[in-house]
This record gives sequence, structure tokens and C-alpha cells, in this order.
Amino acid sequence: MSDPMDYASSGVDIDLEGAAVASLIGSLQRSTRKSGTPGAPVDLPGGFGGLIEFGNHLLAMATDGVGSKLQIATAVRNWDSVGIDCMAMNVNDLLCVGAEPIAFVDYIAVPKPDPKVHAAVGASLAKACELANVTLAGGETASLPGIVTELDLSGTALGFLDKDSAITGERLESGDVLIGLPSSGIHSNGFSLVRNIINRMGLTYTDACPFNAKFSGRNISESPTLADVLLIPTKIYCTPVVGLLNHLKSVQGSVHAVHGIAHITGGGLSNLLRLHDKLGWHIETPMPIPPEFIWLQSQGNVTDLEMHRTFNMGLGMVLAVAEDQAESILSFIQQHEPGAAIIGYVHDDAHKVTHANSEIYFEHY
Amino acid sequence: MSDPMDYASSGVDIDLEGAAVASLIGSLQRSTRKSGTPGAPVDLPGGFGGLIEFGNHLLAMATDGVGSKLQIATAVRNWDSVGIDCMAMNVNDLLCVGAEPIAFVDYIAVPKPDPKVHAAVGASLAKACELANVTLAGGETASLPGIVTELDLSGTALGFLDKDSAITGERLESGDVLIGLPSSGIHSNGFSLVRNIINRMGLTYTDACPFNAKFSGRNISESPTLADVLLIPTKIYCTPVVGLLNHLKSVQGSVHAVHGIAHITGGGLSNLLRLHDKLGWHIETPMPIPPEFIWLQSQGNVTDLEMHRTFNMGLGMVLAVAEDQAESILSFIQQHEPGAAIIGYVHDDAHKVTHANSEIYFEHY
Repeated sequence: MSDPMDYASSGVDIDLEGAAVASLIGSLQRSTRKSGTPGAPVDLPGGFGGLIEFGNHLLAMATDGVGSKLQIATAVRNWDSVGIDCMAMNVNDLLCVGAEPIAFVDYIAVPKPDPKVHAAVGASLAKACELANVTLAGGETASLPGIVTELDLSGTALGFLDKDSAITGERLESGDVLIGLPSSGIHSNGFSLVRNIINRMGLTYTDACPFNAKFSGRNISESPTLADVLLIPTKIYCTPVVGLLNHLKSVQGSVHAVHGIAHITGGGLSNLLRLHDKLGWHIETPMPIPPEFIWLQSQGNVTDLEMHRTFNMGLGMVLAVAEDQAESILSFIQQHEPGAAIIGYVHDDAHKVTHANSEIYFEHY
Repeated sequence: MSDPMDYASSGVDIDLEGAAVASLIGSLQRSTRKSGTPGAPVDLPGGFGGLIEFGNHLLAMATDGVGSKLQIATAVRNWDSVGIDCMAMNVNDLLCVGAEPIAFVDYIAVPKPDPKVHAAVGASLAKACELANVTLAGGETASLPGIVTELDLSGTALGFLDKDSAITGERLESGDVLIGLPSSGIHSNGFSLVRNIINRMGLTYTDACPFNAKFSGRNISESPTLADVLLIPTKIYCTPVVGLLNHLKSVQGSVHAVHGIAHITGGGLSNLLRLHDKLGWHIETPMPIPPEFIWLQSQGNVTDLEMHRTFNMGLGMVLAVAEDQAESILSFIQQHEPGAAIIGYVHDDAHKVTHANSEIYFEHY
């Protein structure tokens, strides 16, 4: 059996990134705008999206890029999905604070403009705007031959919410029910490991997919390539989550039944720990795992723990909701996401994530 | 004398960029959000910042990066100013539509995290937030060793304005007076040409500056390097422009005396043509030209026309104001920008930019 692989051996040094981010944050005085004025910062545990004051509303901004998934798109010259990935990474973060995404801007850096690339990215962004129900409010294309060797794509999403509708995690309590929303596949995290495993196997992205890629809720051709499966776009959760929040507001007068929302990105299940500094999380009934994860794990000889720290493993978003409303909320969400399911609960034993598989255990984000 | 140099020969193909952007725009349906709902797009001539509806307000977003100026900062390992450049490129665009910038997010792409780089960029962004009076609402640091070879830095700014305070250019008329705001130097455009000229001369950025870099309003050491001069940060115009707009609102009840604002970026003076599709612009009394432009022009044997199409030539921002209020507006602005001056006027002869120097003439943006 080949050497076990993990994320760090794929060239991503999480500790180094942590030190870099810490030194960046250390340099920042967050604001010169005073409380009560438009733009004043609103502190929030978890910090998926940055919140600022705006009269009776809060505005939220999120910025993120597609990351090294782009390298696969560029390798096979198929950029049809990257705009959706870019949108999803941002709007899904906004949903976590209870914001409704309304606008988006994209930033494209290329070594040299190529109308074919831009047309494909543009079409993908247009589709993404429809899926997320946002306005494309602008964008920038930078030609940077001395800085980028191939396409980089990032973006910023803007959302809003009523001042009293922020989902801050402060209502989280022991007994809350965790509702999982299925991912579409790998989404846009963990691609350094994906690419390393595939390189080590000597496969190319245009090879026929070496496993059965069919999966519940997935539309895929009869004989997909590896790239077809790896490039399945990240799911955008605006329709079920904004729909739910608006439904709760109209029926109950508030969104308070939703105690916390986590977007499962890099860090996998450990993202849950960002929502609260004391409570614990148990995943009792995990979501079904898409076949690409099972194949990657076996080919890379990756541990269960590492898989769940690097990938979403079928779980794209988690809502922690009041126990007595879990069934009705699940029913509502299943109208848009039939694969949504109750996956576990919140407890007050310890600030950790546990799992039906006892190898999967996180104490730190 | 050496061959004359221009922007295109420096590796930037403006026509190719145009085709790429056109194919991107062609792919986009701008919005799925209907007029009257938060996030619905507001069309605006000029298009410096993207406007969307938000109740009784409009929100504006702008996204841009520092571009190839970063390569000089990275070459000399001095990132103290790049955060200010990044902020300026975005908030100055927002000012053009009459928006007050309130928040900013940054996107950093690096081949590998480096705490020293991040600390310097962070300190620079913190300083920029103070200068622009905005909240840093978030940011993303991406490690992309397969995509970027050195630091790329971009960002997105958010601003707001009252619904009836948008500066759309529709009040522009013949006889309007042009008030120029001095630039701090090269700002963040034209660096492909700058770098080409310097490379061709065999100079390095750490060489002593080969010309007298002193200039009115500029603080610079007695014996600067070439990099010290080239990296002077882009001026942020929030204080004078937001100050003016708020002053006009409180004294006159509206900002209507300001008919148009142009941020002079890539394209130089031709940017003015974006503000109106019929009116013309005459620069009668140009701003003083900082010495680096004069030196670059002579070393690169660049034409006057090319210089004014590539660089700001000392003019960072232009306000077109009602003739009868030009003097009082100028006095207000000079409190913050002592170098501000009346530089010309709007006319209805033709949709072109003319200049005291008859070689400088633009009919197209």
C-alpha cells in the first residue's frame, strides 16, 4: 500500500497559513467607523461573513476565490463551472450569518486576456447569479503576466439582513438538532490533495472516470471523465436557506428557531467549532458519501480523520435548529433539497466534534 | 535616440483586453433581481462603480487590484504602500458616483504564505482603512502555488448614497468648470510601461533615484531610491470628496452642484469621455507634472499623447461642477487638497478631450 497522504504533504502548510493570517489580523485595527454610523463593524462569533451596521439593517460582505480547483478547469480548458464555485464560496458564507445575498463582483487575473476564457467564465458567472439570485454589480479583469501563470478567479458577495435577524450562535444550546444539506461533490476545497493523489496515480483529468460517479441527486453523463466529476460545481444554498429564513419571519415573526449555520469548507466538520466556544457537536447519522471521496481515500490511503478535516464528505451546510421545530424546518428545506436530513445534535459535554465513526474527532478548528 | 515606447509594446494589448471584456459582458445577464427590491441594479453612464437599490439608499461596489505595481513592491520586498494603492483604486471609483465608502474586503493570493508579507500588507491595509474611513469587513488569503508566482492583491469596496444623490453625469453641461485634484505620483496604472522603460535602461529599483524627486506636496527622503518614488501610494480622495458632498448636502440640500467626477486611471485623460456621450472636455491649465513622468517620458522617448493616455500626469481626479459654484467648491476642496485647481471646462463642440498641448487629443475611451 502506498504512503498515506494528507493535506499538509500536498503542499499546504496550515500552520504557516495560520501564522500568516494571524500576523495580518494583528496589523489591523478593524475600523475607524464608530458604532451607530453606516459601516461600523458588528462583531460576531464564527466570522463566516463580515457584518457592518446600516441603519435598521446589517450588511454582510464575504470574499473568497475558487482556489486550486481552477487548475483542473484550466488543464481541461473547461471553465463552465468555476463562476458557480466562486459565487457559492461567497454566498454560502453570507447565509451563515442569516444574510440574503443581493450582489456580487468578480475579480479575474490572467497572464493574458483570452476571449474564450472570459466568455466561459462570464457565462458561468451569469448562471451563478441566477442560482444565487444576485446582481452582478461589477468586476475586474487584470492582465498580470508577471504574477499569475494561469487564471485566478475570486469574488465578493454582499448581503443584508434585519438588525435583529443576525444568526450569531448565541441561541445555540444543548439539544439543538443538526440538519445537514447535501453537497454536490467536492465543492471548492481540498483540491491540493485531490490533485496530488491523481498525479501520484499517473492519471490525467481527461481520463475516463475510474469509478462509478453516479450518486443520489446527481445528473452526470453515462461515461464521464475524471474532470467531469471533479469539476461538479459547488452547491449554492441560497434558495433553501433564504427561503427558510423568510418563511420563518413571515410565520413566526423571527428567524430565532435557527440557532446557527455552518458552511462546510476547508477544515471539514471542524468548521462547526467556529459557531460556539463551549458547546459540542455530535454527528450521529452522517450524510451519504459521494463516490469520489471514497475513491480518493482508497487511492491516497487517507485516514478517515484527514478526509473529514479536508473535505465536506457529502455535507455542504449544517443548520442547528431548535429541537421542537426540527421536523417542520426539515420538511421546508426538503422541498428544495430533498436530500436534507437530520444528522446529529448539539450537546454541552465538551467543545468538540464527535462522529458515529469514532476515528473522527475534532477539538480545534 | 532609442525607439519610442508605448503601452502596447510593453506587453499590454488593449484591443485584446477589450475583446476579452466584451465577451465577458456579452455572457452576462446583469441581474435576476427586480427593480424595487434590495440589490436591483441601477444603470449609470460611465460605470465607475456598480450601483444597486437598497430602500431609500443606493449601495455601490467597486472591485480592483493593484496590478503590476506589486511586482516592484515584491522586487524590493517593501509592501508598506500596496494596501493603500488597493484601497485607493476602489474607493476613488466609488466617489465618482457620489458614494461614501464604508467598508472594504481584501483578497491576497500568494504562492506560499509568508508572515512577513502578510504583516506588511496588513499594516498597509490598516493605514488605508484610516485614510479612507472604512471598516475592513473581511479578507481572504489564498495559497495558490500553481497559479501565482508572487503576491497578487485586490479588493472590493462598498459605499452608499441617498437615492437622489447619485452623480450620474446627466447634469453635465457646457460651461461646467473642471476642478483637478493632484495625484501623489504614478498611482497604480501604467506600470507595465514603467517597468519596461526601467528594464531597458538597465536600472534596478534599489538604485538611487536618477532625478530630483521633490515635488510640491510630497514628503520624500533626501536620497530616495527609484523604488521609493515609484511606490509612492495612490492618493485616497475620500476626505475632500465625501467632505464636499456632505457639505453641499447640509448647506444646499443636495449635491447637484457636482455634475460629474472622474477617477483618472488607466486611459489617463480619456477617462473623462466616460462621463457623458456628447459633451467635450478642454484642459486649459494642466496640473503640474511630477518629475517621474518627465523622466520616464524622456528615457522611454514616449509621446505626449501616449503619456496622457497611460498615466495621470499629476491629475488624480476631476470634478465637473456648476460654473457659478466653482470658486466656492474649489475653496472647500483646497482645505484638504491645497494643490487642487481649476484646470478647464466642459463644452458642447464635440465628444472629445482637448488640451493646452495640442498633441493631446482623445476621441475614444
